[in-house]
Amino acid sequence: MLRIPIADLTHHIERALLNLGLTPDSASLSARLTAETDRDGVRTHGIARLPRFAEMVRIGSIDPQATPKLTTSFGALERWTGHRGPGNLAAYAAMSRAIELAKSHGLGAVALGDTTHWQRGGTFGWQAADANLAALCWTNTMPNLPPWGATTPAIGNNPLVLAIPGTQPIVLDMAMSQFSYGTLASYRKRGEQLPFPGGFDDANHLTTDPAAIERTFRALPIGYWKGSGLSFALDVLAAMLSGGRATHQIPPDALQEVGISQIFLAIAPTSLASIQELTSIATGAIDALHAATPIDPANPPRYPGEATLHTREQNLRLGVPVDETQWQRVLDLALSSKL
Amino acid sequence: MLRIPIADLTHHIERALLNLGLTPDSASLSARLTAETDRDGVRTHGIARLPRFAEMVRIGSIDPQATPKLTTSFGALERWTGHRGPGNLAAYAAMSRAIELAKSHGLGAVALGDTTHWQRGGTFGWQAADANLAALCWTNTMPNLPPWGATTPAIGNNPLVLAIPGTQPIVLDMAMSQFSYGTLASYRKRGEQLPFPGGFDDANHLTTDPAAIERTFRALPIGYWKGSGLSFALDVLAAMLSGGRATHQIPPDALQEVGISQIFLAIAPTSLASIQELTSIATGAIDALHAATPIDPANPPRYPGEATLHTREQNLRLGVPVDETQWQRVLDLALSSKL
Repeated sequence: MLRIPIADLTHHIERALLNLGLTPDSASLSARLTAETDRDGVRTHGIARLPRFAEMVRIGSIDPQATPKLTTSFGALERWTGHRGPGNLAAYAAMSRAIELAKSHGLGAVALGDTTHWQRGGTFGWQAADANLAALCWTNTMPNLPPWGATTPAIGNNPLVLAIPGTQPIVLDMAMSQFSYGTLASYRKRGEQLPFPGGFDDANHLTTDPAAIERTFRALPIGYWKGSGLSFALDVLAAMLSGGRATHQIPPDALQEVGISQIFLAIAPTSLASIQELTSIATGAIDALHAATPIDPANPPRYPGEATLHTREQNLRLGVPVDETQWQRVLDLALSSKL
Repeated sequence: MLRIPIADLTHHIERALLNLGLTPDSASLSARLTAETDRDGVRTHGIARLPRFAEMVRIGSIDPQATPKLTTSFGALERWTGHRGPGNLAAYAAMSRAIELAKSHGLGAVALGDTTHWQRGGTFGWQAADANLAALCWTNTMPNLPPWGATTPAIGNNPLVLAIPGTQPIVLDMAMSQFSYGTLASYRKRGEQLPFPGGFDDANHLTTDPAAIERTFRALPIGYWKGSGLSFALDVLAAMLSGGRATHQIPPDALQEVGISQIFLAIAPTSLASIQELTSIATGAIDALHAATPIDPANPPRYPGEATLHTREQNLRLGVPVDETQWQRVLDLALSSKL
């Protein structure tokens, strides 16, 4: 593992994105969002995803120059289309617009159709929390989980983000699967069993064996039937509001997972009370959470996003940890001539 | 089990509520909502809860005549207080107001503080879906689950409702606990193990033994750390927006579980597209869900709320199933003189 100063990391990502055909402004913003993902320790969704993004641009799945456009609106609710441009930029624009709407109306929502992978969902939660707004966002995905009671994939893992502003922002960023396929692969490579059942084996039994789940492609939704139902409802609502694709219409192929639907809902609590008053409510709840008796005193209960500020500070000070092979891919993309 | 015609059921509940001191209008609406809960097969949250409601009125936890009032508003976002009146009536009024706001602004939210138990959360999802609106609502509760990593209760099971309109409305109504304490008690009384681990035993091991979980009071959030984080975030957002209590401030006593905080968010998809267009998106997703290969062909995958319309039709035709003892309690309350 290397540690790269964030300025260097951002610079080389930006060079790579310019080579992939993004405009200077787009490359600059996307590079910042990607570097900040690694900076915050979410290493699965930062530069780790850049090679796939490059390949999707190369084969035409993603249009590097497309920008999101408003198609329909009514009051504080808007429908936008992403035109299959870079998904993190479309999502950032959608959340920016939802924030504007919330500042005018108390709350606002942008339903974004025909977009592409948003990379780290938490990015848009932090975007809202940093502006003193709360947010709820979610995305649908290709079918990658069986619904409860079935053996074939028909629902997405549909990450859900919930953000709350404050001096200690609360930012939840969770997929509807108990473990991602990336996590299953990590456990398998280390020769380890999962800490909890993560899916079904060929005999319809729950298993902690990651390889068995990779074979059946039957990963488990959180809470069994509950996460299955929540994932389905989030998908239908995203498709309905955006007028875009539902999960069953998204090709089950990582390089063709485009035309997806997302919701960005911002709420302005400061339209109702002072930020001090709001923050004290959150702080009281955080203190009570921390006061619960821990199973292991070395690992007390934490709130969503709690570790992020510490990780961020450390990585800004010491350099952002990056995998050597992934960093080489960034450098290659940064040095290559235009596609 | 008896089957009571819905008109009789509603009439006797209404008599009981009048005896408890509700105004005629309040008693009429609350009786309808309660009877409809049993009519839809959610028997844990209909007349089953009436004796507890009566006791809470008797000891002064619930003010039977209090009505919800607006306290602050900004655009499409409003803060109301429930004044500890009947919780289902305050929730119904809050969702009615959120629907009005959504019709004017595309979306609208009411944050309701200082209220009491809303009985069946799904009621307010159906309320929105029946008006062709989508809705997200949730409530906090007293601390009844340990956060992930802790042994003592510090988060609520905070039911979440997500409703989507259409010819086949999708209405999800789920608590953040994998199994309720009511469900644990049912399994224990039948001498059965849970189908999946539902909590921890004294030795910090996950267990399917309902009695062991009742002893530790360590029921499991859905998705382990994920549901724990979601429950916490929903609680803080509800308290922050309503200006009311967070879970840690709610007494851990069923008869004193008052002053709770709830969110009612309505979205008007018909402000963006025709109901036919919207319905076809939902129908396509439902058809795809049903096309997944079932584990057991007799139990194909279902969408949230799918069974409700069938149960409702059957119970309207044959009478609403009620437990004999619970029905006797309704009759007793209906016949008793005023408190």
